[in-house]
Amino acid sequence: MTATTMDTTRDWELLSEHRSFGGVQRFHRHESTEIGLPMRFALFVPPSGAKGLLVFLAGLTCTEETFTMKAGAQRRAAELGLALLMPDTSPRGEAVTAIPGASDAWDFGLGAGFYLDATQAPWARHWRMESYLMKELIPQVQRALGLDRARTGVFGHSMGGHGALTLALRHPGAFASLSAIAPIAAPSRCPWGEKAFTGYLGADREAWPAHDACALLERQTSVPCPAGVLVDQGLSDKFLAEQLYPEALESACALIGQPLTLRRHEGYDHGYYFIASVVDDHLTHHAQRLGL
Amino acid sequence: MTATTMDTTRDWELLSEHRSFGGVQRFHRHESTEIGLPMRFALFVPPSGAKGLLVFLAGLTCTEETFTMKAGAQRRAAELGLALLMPDTSPRGEAVTAIPGASDAWDFGLGAGFYLDATQAPWARHWRMESYLMKELIPQVQRALGLDRARTGVFGHSMGGHGALTLALRHPGAFASLSAIAPIAAPSRCPWGEKAFTGYLGADREAWPAHDACALLERQTSVPCPAGVLVDQGLSDKFLAEQLYPEALESACALIGQPLTLRRHEGYDHGYYFIASVVDDHLTHHAQRLGL
Repeated sequence: MTATTMDTTRDWELLSEHRSFGGVQRFHRHESTEIGLPMRFALFVPPSGAKGLLVFLAGLTCTEETFTMKAGAQRRAAELGLALLMPDTSPRGEAVTAIPGASDAWDFGLGAGFYLDATQAPWARHWRMESYLMKELIPQVQRALGLDRARTGVFGHSMGGHGALTLALRHPGAFASLSAIAPIAAPSRCPWGEKAFTGYLGADREAWPAHDACALLERQTSVPCPAGVLVDQGLSDKFLAEQLYPEALESACALIGQPLTLRRHEGYDHGYYFIASVVDDHLTHHAQRLGL
Repeated sequence: MTATTMDTTRDWELLSEHRSFGGVQRFHRHESTEIGLPMRFALFVPPSGAKGLLVFLAGLTCTEETFTMKAGAQRRAAELGLALLMPDTSPRGEAVTAIPGASDAWDFGLGAGFYLDATQAPWARHWRMESYLMKELIPQVQRALGLDRARTGVFGHSMGGHGALTLALRHPGAFASLSAIAPIAAPSRCPWGEKAFTGYLGADREAWPAHDACALLERQTSVPCPAGVLVDQGLSDKFLAEQLYPEALESACALIGQPLTLRRHEGYDHGYYFIASVVDDHLTHHAQRLGL
């Protein structure tokens, strides 16, 4: 980062930094205007500077540290010149832990922001992950690294796969590349999604399709991601049948002519040993589409 | 593993297994005769079967899961045909948590077995990590994989680097390859080692050199590891000056003509981002010496 980027980053508190594969893995905290609370994120900057930015959105119960620590992505990112941005998965801290229902379940509230702006009380005040990412954090990081939308991609896992797909579809042009690992592809139809959408968006299902990847795809009048979407799914994933619906994603993409590479992997589960096994392919997918 | 290995592994309870880079990452629990308690360990078996076995000994506070989850070693191990064995770092469970002093500090007792057999009460009964590894766990895993000592290497980090060096030196011929990452090289001279040795071996320093890598090296009458030892050390490691003493290791190796490649890495700290950055080099080092 250069002197001209100081405006953006001077409000980022540096919590820790670690040399990693010749680059640097940093953990930051900053005051988020959109969330109205301090937020944490992790940023990996490759050794020769960032030629592209890849945002990873994590799944239920995760923090900014989970993928950073477990996926082993820095090795390939360093080779490719990709910066990696790992946001947290929800607001945190005393102000929100005290909200009734915020910490009663692992699939709602804390660690379960679903990358949308809640419209329902008491969540609407702080649960604004979509605005936080799209208006605040990602633009700040792009400015800090001197990169634009044409050099920015997004991917994610499970709830974060839902986030990657829906944010890319809801914000045309914001990302130049897209992929997902075991995404919640049709949240309106699965228990995790129904619980989250009922809580954050309300019981009236009218508001749900705008945050459902399959529903969003079916509405498209042109191909949203002509460069193609990569999705990996483990076939021993215990959440596959009830929560994930990759076949619905396949159908929705086919309906509108969206190129999709959906790879089904025998024996792999929903966890980070699976993510680590495919993460290099995702980084390569993005690097190619970001022109690296 | 084949039917002929069932004798060895039938007493290994399978806690979980995860497909990883085409191989399988398993977590087991078994009753240890040497420790007198159940112990846990992690074992990665590469996709085409194990052509060699590499034992990783972890540092203070770690468990069998830490390196398994954070180091990203399975990718290269799968390529090389190396099985990876990750033992726990001490006895665990109610029987030992209740021992006065077992859980008062992060650098002694639980998570801090130092890979030796304690001689002092109350530790001598269960803190028998050296006998557990050398007489029980490693031979069991070797039998299960159909591999002998000529196909077995050992490495470790920090306290586990001390463990790798001392076990290899105390058991000539037990390992065909040896390396360490930020090892505690001269425990008799550093606070971590003095505390552990006083507690486990007694205040009489007569017993200490037999468990001190530098002291053991200085006693050798022939070169213990002619194939050479690889050691990596970060120069921003906050424990470097007070606890680790790589320069003492360098001197001890020079004294007896033990080939040592000691790499000092600018900017790297003591944590797993450093380990992940160098782990592929360690796996390659071992694979070459194990004839893979």
